Amino acid sequence: MLSDIEICRTTPLSSINTIARQAGFLDTEVVSHGTYKAKISLKALKRCQTHAKGKLILVTAITPTPLGEGKTVTTIGLAQGIAKLQHSVMACIRQPSMGPIFGIKGGAAGGGFSQVAPMESLNLHLTGDIHAVTSAHNLAAAALDARIYHEQRQGYEAFEARTGMTALKIDKVVWKRVLDHNDRALRRITVGQNELGKTVNGYEREDGFDISAASELMAILALASDIHDLRTRIGKVVLAYNLQGEPVTAENLQVAGAMTVTMKEAIEPTLMQTLEGVPTLIHSGPFANIAHGNSSVIADNLATSLSDYTVTEAGFGSDMGFEKACNIKAQASGQSPDCAVIVATLRGLKANSGNISLQPGQPIPKELYQPNKDALLKGFENLKWHINNVTRYGIPAVIAINRFPQDSEQELNELVKMVKALNYPVEVAISDAFSQGGEGALQLAEKVIKQCQTPTAFQPLYSLSQTLEEKLMKIAEVGYGASNVVLSDQAKKQLQQLTAQGYHSLALCMAKTPASISGDPSIKGAPRGFTLEVNELKLCAGAGFIYAVCGNIMTMPGLSDRPSYMNLDIDQNGDVIGLS
Amino acid sequence: MLSDIEICRTTPLSSINTIARQAGFLDTEVVSHGTYKAKISLKALKRCQTHAKGKLILVTAITPTPLGEGKTVTTIGLAQGIAKLQHSVMACIRQPSMGPIFGIKGGAAGGGFSQVAPMESLNLHLTGDIHAVTSAHNLAAAALDARIYHEQRQGYEAFEARTGMTALKIDKVVWKRVLDHNDRALRRITVGQNELGKTVNGYEREDGFDISAASELMAILALASDIHDLRTRIGKVVLAYNLQGEPVTAENLQVAGAMTVTMKEAIEPTLMQTLEGVPTLIHSGPFANIAHGNSSVIADNLATSLSDYTVTEAGFGSDMGFEKACNIKAQASGQSPDCAVIVATLRGLKANSGNISLQPGQPIPKELYQPNKDALLKGFENLKWHINNVTRYGIPAVIAINRFPQDSEQELNELVKMVKALNYPVEVAISDAFSQGGEGALQLAEKVIKQCQTPTAFQPLYSLSQTLEEKLMKIAEVGYGASNVVLSDQAKKQLQQLTAQGYHSLALCMAKTPASISGDPSIKGAPRGFTLEVNELKLCAGAGFIYAVCGNIMTMPGLSDRPSYMNLDIDQNGDVIGLS
Repeated sequence: MLSDIEICRTTPLSSINTIARQAGFLDTEVVSHGTYKAKISLKALKRCQTHAKGKLILVTAITPTPLGEGKTVTTIGLAQGIAKLQHSVMACIRQPSMGPIFGIKGGAAGGGFSQVAPMESLNLHLTGDIHAVTSAHNLAAAALDARIYHEQRQGYEAFEARTGMTALKIDKVVWKRVLDHNDRALRRITVGQNELGKTVNGYEREDGFDISAASELMAILALASDIHDLRTRIGKVVLAYNLQGEPVTAENLQVAGAMTVTMKEAIEPTLMQTLEGVPTLIHSGPFANIAHGNSSVIADNLATSLSDYTVTEAGFGSDMGFEKACNIKAQASGQSPDCAVIVATLRGLKANSGNISLQPGQPIPKELYQPNKDALLKGFENLKWHINNVTRYGIPAVIAINRFPQDSEQELNELVKMVKALNYPVEVAISDAFSQGGEGALQLAEKVIKQCQTPTAFQPLYSLSQTLEEKLMKIAEVGYGASNVVLSDQAKKQLQQLTAQGYHSLALCMAKTPASISGDPSIKGAPRGFTLEVNELKLCAGAGFIYAVCGNIMTMPGLSDRPSYMNLDIDQNGDVIGLS
Repeated sequence: MLSDIEICRTTPLSSINTIARQAGFLDTEVVSHGTYKAKISLKALKRCQTHAKGKLILVTAITPTPLGEGKTVTTIGLAQGIAKLQHSVMACIRQPSMGPIFGIKGGAAGGGFSQVAPMESLNLHLTGDIHAVTSAHNLAAAALDARIYHEQRQGYEAFEARTGMTALKIDKVVWKRVLDHNDRALRRITVGQNELGKTVNGYEREDGFDISAASELMAILALASDIHDLRTRIGKVVLAYNLQGEPVTAENLQVAGAMTVTMKEAIEPTLMQTLEGVPTLIHSGPFANIAHGNSSVIADNLATSLSDYTVTEAGFGSDMGFEKACNIKAQASGQSPDCAVIVATLRGLKANSGNISLQPGQPIPKELYQPNKDALLKGFENLKWHINNVTRYGIPAVIAINRFPQDSEQELNELVKMVKALNYPVEVAISDAFSQGGEGALQLAEKVIKQCQTPTAFQPLYSLSQTLEEKLMKIAEVGYGASNVVLSDQAKKQLQQLTAQGYHSLALCMAKTPASISGDPSIKGAPRGFTLEVNELKLCAGAGFIYAVCGNIMTMPGLSDRPSYMNLDIDQNGDVIGLS
């Protein structure tokens, strides 16, 4: 079989203006960036305000292995399958982060015959949204350190007299800097260092960089309903605390306007197409462990306003992106999924047995592709857990078994039987979206369309009016099945402070390992009776949630000793090679 | 008079495809980014290879005040004037850096009726070139620290056995990180810090960030002749030295391909238009003190291949960007200017008298606009110096006196007389490009066209085959008029090392204050007999020059206590306000 980039290069594509018209956008709403990409003006949002909304299909997965289960492939393939059944359909996915592309992951545009094209445009820069988030984020950081510098160097009174502004008296900075790279050396740094006795470079303090996708601004981009909501949310972002322990916001620093201006184009989704011409909106960034990991409210709103079916994707397993889609995103947008697709693979289920170890950067153990009844049975518990998790929200589900070429036909059929034997009100289909595109996802598409007709009874796990503690307990105990939650002393103190500061009605975004349903990445399958440890609570007042750090969550990845950037180059025609 | 952004918003513009056709680009060479911006494919370079070249006009200035002398206004206005005289013309300017836009400068698209439009597109992100440079630069930095981490943690032998690669044994890193912000707290930092006894974040070392425009990759972008030359130059970039003191290049680190891929779109100039529809290519970044400060070789090549006249701009005074245009850029491209325009203002000349102090961030002293014969006479020495400097290279010159509304007509005429009285073979014209657009630059355009017919006898100051020391002496003594050059012990040692390492045939890029012809920013006018101090020599092997640091050169600006980001916001329509 051809490589992803070869398939992508040899597939004829339509111009993005044709795709946009086909999707129902007016020419005046489409700002093309070259032949195959376009920004969609938010004028379209206004026009479509009163449209009846199509069905929203959310693709999630079992607890994923480090290699991924093919969720994007299934999302794109399913959308192509629905198109082949002559329904109007759009896909909504997130923009890949360049850090992991240069690191271990390679491209993130789907794969095989189910890709968003051109894949190198999607994977590299796209239309600059992540760069805009990086720029707006770091503007606030520079503004903060500059303000501290001028206030401290001049003295508060002199500063107020000279500038006519009120001194912010910043005491503690909580806003780190960001870059879209896997750069472990920036995780923990000291800034503002000077030669002895000088202060020309500001005041020394400990700081660090996160990867851009972990920025609160990325979460805001995904949740904002329009540019004015973006502006309001950015104004609320808490950057620091003053000497009295009160929050210092971007509004207080008078930088919220400039940050919004910097993200003015990023708030518009980018339109692309799949290899089979399905219109696809790309918006907001990845990472469902440290952020909420879903495509944007704006993109979903546009797609469901214009098409009968919208297929979107939530990061990692259903304990991660799917939970956040239901409890954070749906509560913000008022729009909940009409059907969930749970992607499973034989490989992934066997890895979930805990019997076979799979490490990032290491070759895939061959035994993962060999029939292994015992491992499958054990790993199946994980799938069962995710089915129960999804249906708990009142959302009908379809299990998509994503086939790998090495898989045994017999074992695949065995898995189908196991699902059917559960006698749950779910559907199951084998997907050949990777090797056959939409044609390979026809059965899946039919079952999804069928489930979309089932009446939903959507019910989030908690309501925003509950206390922060209640919300946390609900996610941990009902959502994950933990027997109890242990808060560190720091987290307990933060819980009190956040409640006292009036942030009690925010949602909770769990920053948890995606490698286990529990907080411990080594526990596979469907663990029960575990304790969830919460180390820290972080305020994202602009995004509208409090981010609960469970265990050791890395917000800046590192590069391995054989990173994938080594494969990337240009060929004699100046075309990209080495991206897959 | 209306503000710049108001003028820009109320001026009707043509679609960029119309502008592109008018400029002589084929539709297949134009990748539009919305209605008013397009990337120009380098296919155009190949097609135009054999075209006869039009005249290249380089706009420079007297020693500028911190407020600028209106060089971009004059560049755009002159191009518009030439167009009004029915000649085919294009302008080539650099992309503004967002750091200074948020800092003190506001926009950098020209002003009044001589602007590149839409000005907010030019000033913010444009087509992402600076972001691409930032990304490629920081990829190399992340790759470097990751390699050090893996080699040291595993041990050299184990690393080689495990990865099959040769250990680079990196000892000293010379590649800093970059961001497009004015962020003084990042000038000097410590990276790779860990909790006691751990090394998960790499190894601690001192580091720092420069502003992105100061990246060697930006200089490379401006000097590369095509994407393959870009790839070759990036491969040569020296990132570090190993335990044997030998250079470690981007090629050695196997990251040069990925860096090139990251800059694949940045190598294509962006086409925009002036308010009067003159096609304008935007390419590479600003900063003629710490970089070479000129538009790109590729943009000049395209523009001169397709139009009779190309107007481009070099940063700061003629001792800075113009010198580098002649000695670095022209020696790399083989294309030298046919005419130089020296922009002077009454305000700037009076400031150059040294009698009136002008500080960034402070209100402009009113006396700068009042007739002051003594100050003008003294400051005129500076203009004389720049005329001599330009004509020394064998390039015919025109003095453009950029009028401010507050200027006295009588004093302007006095200045014209003073220039004429010199009896130099130069022309002089008053420019009203700001208030009248091309109409206000007609006389200037006529004189420039006349001077373009004068045969040139271009002569760079030095040839690349001279020793590094000879080149340095030439620029300092002949170029600046220094009586001698003093190298620090460090610079002396570096001169020997660079020569020994085979880098003796590179050009020299002087990192000097733009505020004086000497190395001391407080010395105004036309100083003579001064000593130039060189503190440090830095290798830019990919750009093809050695960067000589004279005095205290800041490579990362800071924000003032009343930065211009505070003015920026969106209005009720979602449009940008506060950019000028």
